[in-house]
This record gives sequence, structure tokens and C-alpha cells, in this order.
Amino acid sequence: MHSEVRIKAGAAKEAATVLGTVSTAVKNAALQAIADALRRETAQILEANRLDMEAAGAKGLSGAFIERLMLDESRVESMSRGLEELIGLADPVGEVVDGRRLPNGLEIVKVRVPLGVVGIIYESRPNVTVDAAGLCLKAGNAVILRGGSEAINSNKALVGIATAAAVEAGVPKKALQLIETTNRAAAEEMMGLAGYIDVLIPRGGAGLIRTVIEKAKVPVIETGVGNCHTYVDAAADLNMAARIAFNAKVQRPGVCNAMETLLIHRSIADIFLPDMCHSFRQAGIEIRGDETVCALCKEAVPATEEDWYTEYLALTLSIKVVDDLNEAIAHIRKYGSGHSEAIVTGNLAAARRFTREIDAAAVYINASTRFTDGSEFGLGAEIGISTQKLHARGPMGLQALTSSKFIIAGEGQIRGACPEEGVRPSVKK
Amino acid sequence: MHSEVRIKAGAAKEAATVLGTVSTAVKNAALQAIADALRRETAQILEANRLDMEAAGAKGLSGAFIERLMLDESRVESMSRGLEELIGLADPVGEVVDGRRLPNGLEIVKVRVPLGVVGIIYESRPNVTVDAAGLCLKAGNAVILRGGSEAINSNKALVGIATAAAVEAGVPKKALQLIETTNRAAAEEMMGLAGYIDVLIPRGGAGLIRTVIEKAKVPVIETGVGNCHTYVDAAADLNMAARIAFNAKVQRPGVCNAMETLLIHRSIADIFLPDMCHSFRQAGIEIRGDETVCALCKEAVPATEEDWYTEYLALTLSIKVVDDLNEAIAHIRKYGSGHSEAIVTGNLAAARRFTREIDAAAVYINASTRFTDGSEFGLGAEIGISTQKLHARGPMGLQALTSSKFIIAGEGQIRGACPEEGVRPSVKK
Repeated sequence: MHSEVRIKAGAAKEAATVLGTVSTAVKNAALQAIADALRRETAQILEANRLDMEAAGAKGLSGAFIERLMLDESRVESMSRGLEELIGLADPVGEVVDGRRLPNGLEIVKVRVPLGVVGIIYESRPNVTVDAAGLCLKAGNAVILRGGSEAINSNKALVGIATAAAVEAGVPKKALQLIETTNRAAAEEMMGLAGYIDVLIPRGGAGLIRTVIEKAKVPVIETGVGNCHTYVDAAADLNMAARIAFNAKVQRPGVCNAMETLLIHRSIADIFLPDMCHSFRQAGIEIRGDETVCALCKEAVPATEEDWYTEYLALTLSIKVVDDLNEAIAHIRKYGSGHSEAIVTGNLAAARRFTREIDAAAVYINASTRFTDGSEFGLGAEIGISTQKLHARGPMGLQALTSSKFIIAGEGQIRGACPEEGVRPSVKK
Repeated sequence: MHSEVRIKAGAAKEAATVLGTVSTAVKNAALQAIADALRRETAQILEANRLDMEAAGAKGLSGAFIERLMLDESRVESMSRGLEELIGLADPVGEVVDGRRLPNGLEIVKVRVPLGVVGIIYESRPNVTVDAAGLCLKAGNAVILRGGSEAINSNKALVGIATAAAVEAGVPKKALQLIETTNRAAAEEMMGLAGYIDVLIPRGGAGLIRTVIEKAKVPVIETGVGNCHTYVDAAADLNMAARIAFNAKVQRPGVCNAMETLLIHRSIADIFLPDMCHSFRQAGIEIRGDETVCALCKEAVPATEEDWYTEYLALTLSIKVVDDLNEAIAHIRKYGSGHSEAIVTGNLAAARRFTREIDAAAVYINASTRFTDGSEFGLGAEIGISTQKLHARGPMGLQALTSSKFIIAGEGQIRGACPEEGVRPSVKK
């Protein structure tokens, strides 16, 4: 008697061995078939989503929650478009990453292969279901999806439609599976399935990610938490700095690459801050500042120690005045989450020191942190933004969903001299 | 009041930020200084090792254990030579892995950076102390070493000498630290120090590795367990097959890339096995076989299900006769550990299927599995052989001890259109 999770993980492992050798043409055909099927079955998807929306409304869930859960025709269309974009990306499987002939004549190549079985644990955002399924399929991985319970009807509809279309195109049936048991125990069971699931990628808020990292026995790729800073140096072009800081905070405050703390060199604070704070206030941003900031900006309220650690993901910004580049770097080292950090400066030495000494996935000179994104970086679609240092760091495209293997070909090479020189193995034919 | 582990981990994190920006010249000078100091202080090292050897003898530890613990002049010399070989390898830090100009004019490069703090948990082999310290230093990582308690005097002497020499050359003092608390609690504390230790690499037997993987909250790189197979196909050159199989088993049976199970195609079993088994027996190998093997080889005893799972690391070999390539692949999938697998065949289709369908770090055609090794593969020295799929797979050289970061340079680029178009941030100068 096995649980749903255990059964599906076993089936995924079997499916992965087949999917890993499926041709690019078949995978692309499956992506197109899923895109077409989602368009064709939009009514069915929206009907399932309506059930989820009604239940969420009855539970009194927040507006932002409902907004993420909601599907409409244009959202289904953009899911389909996302799949079609994957068709255009190069298949990472089979790429020869490295290779040479060794002195003994052995020919060695390092080839990209799928990871195997990828588990995605996420919240009630049905677009993640299709997104993650498409990326895993293109990279040749079987995927086990465990989405938030409030999206269960939407997810069942999406996975049902996608699976039927993919199977028709020649993909193994169990390559794409949804965990329908939506309690916490099912998620925790996934986290323990070492030997079945090759990697778990949590997608969602900081709480979800922390839970997965703490409980998982399966390797996890940590994504998403971004306590991002912009440091305006003494040598900055102040108009450029204002434009970059404003964009980093205001253009889309709810995402991980948005700025949470602005650091200002003391020598320019009095000419930079009053106008900057005014612009932020006009854009509806609440400002929490240190003493100097509060003295210069009537819009600011005092920041607490807690503020420097906080990823607001909201219309709130903390601002601190620092004495020099050293203090800016030290602040970011202490409070930053290693996601995206920017310096605005015209001074080459400052720019070089900042990029060398700041330990983050993406370090910017004179640009907005908002660019940290797989598509903006030219990697194509992304499965998330890794803030850890192993395997992948920063936006993760298809390559982050692969591993590699060495293939070595020879004509009878053996290693070293045999210790038992008297024994000369041979076979009479 | 902090423990030794916590204090040293904090100091390592500080040291790592400095070491990450130290020049190649300084790191190479430190490697040479350590190599020289070890040679100069050989008497002190051997005296410390004598204390460990006496204690181990008094405890009645096994001959193999004592053999690994023992140091003599030639072993110290080969530690020094190992460090000198690292000097010749390219510094991985700062290597530009990828880069382009984006359509909006941003210039992006992906640069190799150190991982930060590496923890090594290993057994009573003092050579690992110097080996791991050298590799971590060259890759710009601070290292925390936790060796087996029986080698504590040797390790203290080695780390003391190495640290003094490295500091003299300009490396931060806490870049290389030994945990001197040798109880289990200290090792477990290391496994829990997420946020301080960036990666843990266990080096040693299967038991040690399993414990670290199960208990660690810090990311772990799994190394070493090798239940390796050689499959002799119907279309094999049987003399080549005999030579490869003999080498894979006999040349050095105690290491992870040695063969543990030989698979033979049924059609050639009767001409291949009797002579092969005879050669193995002459080399002192105990043979455990299935029914057919036992019928063909008087030297064989019956294998149990357990045997197929076992990494003997000894003069024992299991042999199985399979009906075809399908059965060979299925057997390896079921029992293999994903380390090194070989096919001996003259048939191209069989070779291609084997390399495609076998999911292992290294897959061989017509060569001995014994070649799986960083130095043999042309990667230089290795910190271990990864049998996991994330981050690094197969022999891990200096690159496996690095991460990367994106550096993005612009001249004021911001993303998208601002949602608050009325607000135009600017600063009066």
C-alpha cells in the first residue's frame, strides 16, 4: 500500500528514463500540442478555475491571492505562448560541453543529460503549472507538480489537458504528474523521496522556501528571496541614479528583483535625497530611513534594525546614508540575500571593487536590479532565480534543469601496470 | 559562549570574503610555501603521526586503517608534490564563462567565483588534510577540515605548519582551519551550519557519506560510492574484454572505480567464462555467480540478491549472465550507483544505446572503469568523484569548487515603462 506521492514518484522515475532519450522533434511537437490543447479547452480550464475562485472567495482570501489564482482567456493564451517560446529554444540535452583525446588515446566527451525527476512545490498560481511542466519537458525531465490546495481544480484541468496532448505527441504518460493530495503531509513526503526525485524546486514566498530547505532530504534549489540594494556612490550621475532607483523600486515592487533598500553616499545625500524622496512619495512609496534620511526627507519615518533585513515586496523602501563604499559593501554583506545588487557611479575603481566584493547572483553597475530575469539575460524562459551557490546561481534557464555525463570511448585501454604481472588474462576462441 | 565549530565557521566566512579576491600569484606562493614547509618540518609531522599510530595500535585498529593513517617521508613528499601540481593548474576564479551584449545595450558577463566556505568531513587519512586544503585554497575558498579523531595529532601538525606558511605568503589566517573537537557532535554541528558553510563534502566510506547526506542542512556533494559494472556484449572482442575486466577488478580493488559486477552476454558465456574465472582465481579473486556462472566456473559460489547491491572494495567479484543488452541495462539501472559503467562491444548500435541509456557519471566503451579520476580525465587534481547529478557529476576538479556570478554594466538602463508615468524623478544639481 503506497501513497499517491510514492506511486507517482516511482512512475516518474520510469518515465524519466524514456523521456531522457526522446528526440527534440517529439518534445517540441508535444509542447505545440499542449499549447493548442490549452487554447482549445479554454472553457473547461476557466470553469475549473471558477470553482477555485468561488472557494477562495468563500474563504475570504486576500485580493492579491485571488489575483494570482485567477485565470481568464488572456492568461490561458499567455500560457500557450510561453510553451511556444520554449519550442524556439535549443534543446540542452545532448549538448557536448567539453571533450578531448587523452594521452592514452581514450576519447572523452562531457555531454548534457536531463536531471531525471524534478519536483516543483508551489503556491496557488496555476500559470506555474504549465510553465514548469513545459520547461521540464523541454529539458527531458519527468516532473511532479505539487501546487497550492486552492488551485487544485485549475491544476487538475491543466494537467489533464496537457498530459493527453503530450502523450498523443509521443511523450510517456507519467512524464507529467500532479499530486492531488493537497495536505502538508503529501508535500513533506515529496521532500523525503531521495532516490526518486533528483531535485526539488520550491517556487513561492520566503516561508514556503524555508520550509522546503529545512525539511528536504532531496537536493533543493533555493530560489527567489531578494533583499536587493542600490548604492548611489559619491561619483554617481545623480539624475541617472534617481532614474535607476525609482525604476528598481516602483516599476514592479512585488517581485524579487525589486529594490528594498537604497544606500546613499553621505557627500551627496543633501542634494540627492529630498527630491528623490519626494518622487517616491508621489509614487505612493512609504520611506523608512536612518537619522540623516529622516532629517533630510519629511516623508521618512525611522527605520528599525528589522527593516534592513526585510524584503518588503511592497510599496515600502528603507533608505540609509553611508560614509563610504566600505560601509555600503559591509551593509549589503550583512543584510543582503545574495540576489541582485547595484552601484551607481562614474568611478571605475568603485565599480570594480563593488562587483568584485559583493557576493550576489547579479551585480549591476549603472542599471536597475529589475533586469535579473532569464528572459532579460538572454537565457530564454526561466524556472526561477537561484540564490544559492551550488549548481546554478541567478536566473535558471533550461541548462539549470540538466546534469552531465562523461562518455569515454577506447579500444581496450586499461589503467596502470597490473600488480599481478604473472597473470595474463586471455580467452581461447 | 560559542562552540569551536561555530567560532571557526564565523571566522571562515570572514576569511572567505578576503580570500575570494586574493590574486593567483599570492595563492600560488602560498601553495609553494606550504609545500616547502611540509618538507622542512617532516620530522615534526612524523613525530605527531607516531603518536596517532601508537594510539591506533593500542586500540587494535585494523591493518588497512593503520595503513591509511600512516605517514612516512615519501608520503609527506607526495603531499608537497600534490600542492606543487596545483600551482600549475589554471586559477578558476575570474574565468569568464559566458557573456554578451543585450539588445538594450547592457553588457553581461558570467564570471566564476569561489563557493565561499567549504567543509570537509573525512576519515583518518592525513593526506586528505593537505589535499583538500590545497584545492580549496587554489579555488579561493576558506576550508574547515574535520578529520577522523585517530589522526588528530597528525592533522594538528599539518594544519599548523600549513597555516603559518600560507599566512606568511599573504593568505588570511582563518582561511584554513581544523576542527579539533573530534566527537560526533562537532561533526553534526558542521552539518547544521547553513549560512556559514556553503557546501559540505564528505570523503570516506559509504557509512560516513550516508550520515552526512541524511543529517546535513548545508548543501552536500555526494561522493564516492561506486558499484561499477562491466558488460561484455555478444559482439565483444573477447581478449579485449578479458583484459578490461581483469584490469577493472584486479589493478586496485579497494577504490570506487573498480568493477564489482561483471555481466556477460549468454551467447559467449561458455567460451568466455571458464578462462576468465580461472584468471580471476589466480589473482586471488573470490567469485560469486548466478546459476549459469556456477555451472561454467568451478571457482564460483552462488551469489545472493545482496551481492548485486554490494560495493565490495575487495578481492570479491559477482558475475551474472544476461540474455541481452536490455537485461544488462536493466540490471545496471537497478543495482548500479551511477558511478562508472562499461560496455565491451564491437557493435556500434549496442555501444550507442549503452551510453545513451545508462545513467552514470562515466560511461565507457571498450575501456576499464578504473580511468574515472580527475587526473586521468585531464581535470588536474580532484576533490572527489560526485555521484549526484546537481552541481558536479564525476571527478570534481577546481571548477567544482566554484560558483558564478553575473556582472551587468550599463549607462542608466531601466526596465519597462514606469507604471507611474506622471512621476519623472530628477535631481536638481
